[in-house]
Amino acid sequence: MGEFDLIARYFQRPVQRAALGVGDDCALLQPGPGMQLAISSDMLLEGRHFLSTVDPRKLGHKALAVNLSDLAACGAKPLAFTLALALPRVDENWLAEFAEGLLALANAHGCELIGGDTTQGPLNICITVLGEVPVVDGRSLALLRNGACAGDDLYVSGTLGDARLALEVFRGTVSVPAPVFEAARARMEQPTPRVALGLALRGIATAAIDVSDGLLGDLGHILQQSGVGATVEADLAASLVAARALCAATTPRPGSEIAQNHWRSWALAGGDDYELLFTAPPAARARVANAASSSQTAVTRIGQIEQQSGLRLVDSEGRELPNKYSSFDHFA
Amino acid sequence: MGEFDLIARYFQRPVQRAALGVGDDCALLQPGPGMQLAISSDMLLEGRHFLSTVDPRKLGHKALAVNLSDLAACGAKPLAFTLALALPRVDENWLAEFAEGLLALANAHGCELIGGDTTQGPLNICITVLGEVPVVDGRSLALLRNGACAGDDLYVSGTLGDARLALEVFRGTVSVPAPVFEAARARMEQPTPRVALGLALRGIATAAIDVSDGLLGDLGHILQQSGVGATVEADLAASLVAARALCAATTPRPGSEIAQNHWRSWALAGGDDYELLFTAPPAARARVANAASSSQTAVTRIGQIEQQSGLRLVDSEGRELPNKYSSFDHFA
Repeated sequence: MGEFDLIARYFQRPVQRAALGVGDDCALLQPGPGMQLAISSDMLLEGRHFLSTVDPRKLGHKALAVNLSDLAACGAKPLAFTLALALPRVDENWLAEFAEGLLALANAHGCELIGGDTTQGPLNICITVLGEVPVVDGRSLALLRNGACAGDDLYVSGTLGDARLALEVFRGTVSVPAPVFEAARARMEQPTPRVALGLALRGIATAAIDVSDGLLGDLGHILQQSGVGATVEADLAASLVAARALCAATTPRPGSEIAQNHWRSWALAGGDDYELLFTAPPAARARVANAASSSQTAVTRIGQIEQQSGLRLVDSEGRELPNKYSSFDHFA
Repeated sequence: MGEFDLIARYFQRPVQRAALGVGDDCALLQPGPGMQLAISSDMLLEGRHFLSTVDPRKLGHKALAVNLSDLAACGAKPLAFTLALALPRVDENWLAEFAEGLLALANAHGCELIGGDTTQGPLNICITVLGEVPVVDGRSLALLRNGACAGDDLYVSGTLGDARLALEVFRGTVSVPAPVFEAARARMEQPTPRVALGLALRGIATAAIDVSDGLLGDLGHILQQSGVGATVEADLAASLVAARALCAATTPRPGSEIAQNHWRSWALAGGDDYELLFTAPPAARARVANAASSSQTAVTRIGQIEQQSGLRLVDSEGRELPNKYSSFDHFA
């Protein structure tokens, strides 16, 4: 099967919202009146962002999910995406399943595949996603990283650290009962982009980011760009690891170097969570609760934004804890 | 140097036209009133799209040029692009030169780098480019592949086949004098996207495509999507190889299988030309000539669109030639 057959068979669908989809030099897209475009690109590589053994359906889901998560963090409504795909070879089963997982999530969000590229090479999936955000009276409603104010509450959606638990099981540093592993693995392989929550937080949240490199590292971007500091209740964050409710204890493998407070460590610096971390003034607590319930997404207040720069961790009794957690960096 | 320092140092520039550039979850872009967005993605891999020995400045240029060429083929004005980059390691000299070549071409076209992604992996450059096309009275002025009509003239811009000549020299199948090689190599490594010509052809050309996989292969897309056929004057196309004016003959290496009519072969199916192939009615010849001269781009009429389906090659005396040329396909 050649390149153009491959595109036609697996990735070309009737155009829905776009003015022109797959099959010309460019796709054409008309944003709605008074709308601004939000654009983000993410590249996923085998061995770095996913394991070679991953189910291609789940990989298709995840490749788009991590991009939709960026739109969610901006409060943008998904519109369309392009897919550039390097494949070692044409494996029709693999392609059919990958496309199925990818397009199922795309359809669920009304996000249309409008173009891209295919080439032969080491497996690499690069998606650019396009969304829209209203501009009202000349002011964009996009949620940015630079709007957090001293006194704001700090919230995180959903659960934290389970993807990291699954990764540690794959790495062989820890073992957990099979049902716990399966639940954690689903969080790693099929994250849920918090698109509905992001939309519901427009006009409420003062700053937002999606947690991909670890909670504290991503919080650091908000603090830096907003020129503020924060205190985070470490044990509250650690309580958000879903696996904790399922198993009281993990079993470290002999010789592995799992940290003593590994729940806390995975919650604060696990990575691959794709939850929204955001700030809002205390006066907006009821509106945040409404946004959470209308989007059917759990939200937990885990700290406070402060004028004093820096990031402080405290335990449940307010005692300061050392912050030794580092964020994921591809080149560190 | 970490991932975020790398982005800040080499790829973050003050925002020009975008509402928000590099550094948040998404970039924000507001198309002009009455404008439609044109979007295209291209992925370039080492060893497949470029040689590992290429000057990084030229690689930066080419990675964006092939994307701008897609905008040109749609008659879209470049606005912005995202860059997703997988790098085997952080080489600061390489990055500085790559960014220099990339951003020089970007600045020349007012096309702003607004976001992207960096990761560690086999060298892979994925660019998504965004341009705009006016919509007048509800009708897009974008140049598409499906508008060619029987009777239309067929044109190509610039020169053909020189990139392929350079590739064959690198492959060792042929040798040419050094100055000829250098000129051909420049065409391969630093193609010129025909953006100004594409803009000038709005409202004149009935169909257009950029020649990246070889003239005849790309013409096939226009014919298929327009439901027409064509006759191409093969020797006229072959006369567009710039190197022919510089050297009367190439010297095939002993044992190499260079086709007897290699000028013709390289012009018709060389690949990597990044010229515009387009159609326009005979009544528009003066307007095509004006578009060529206003954009300072040579344009040659090389054939005719016909009702009879299929692609026919003729020599300078109108005798039909066999068409044995195949287009480049990444998976064929």
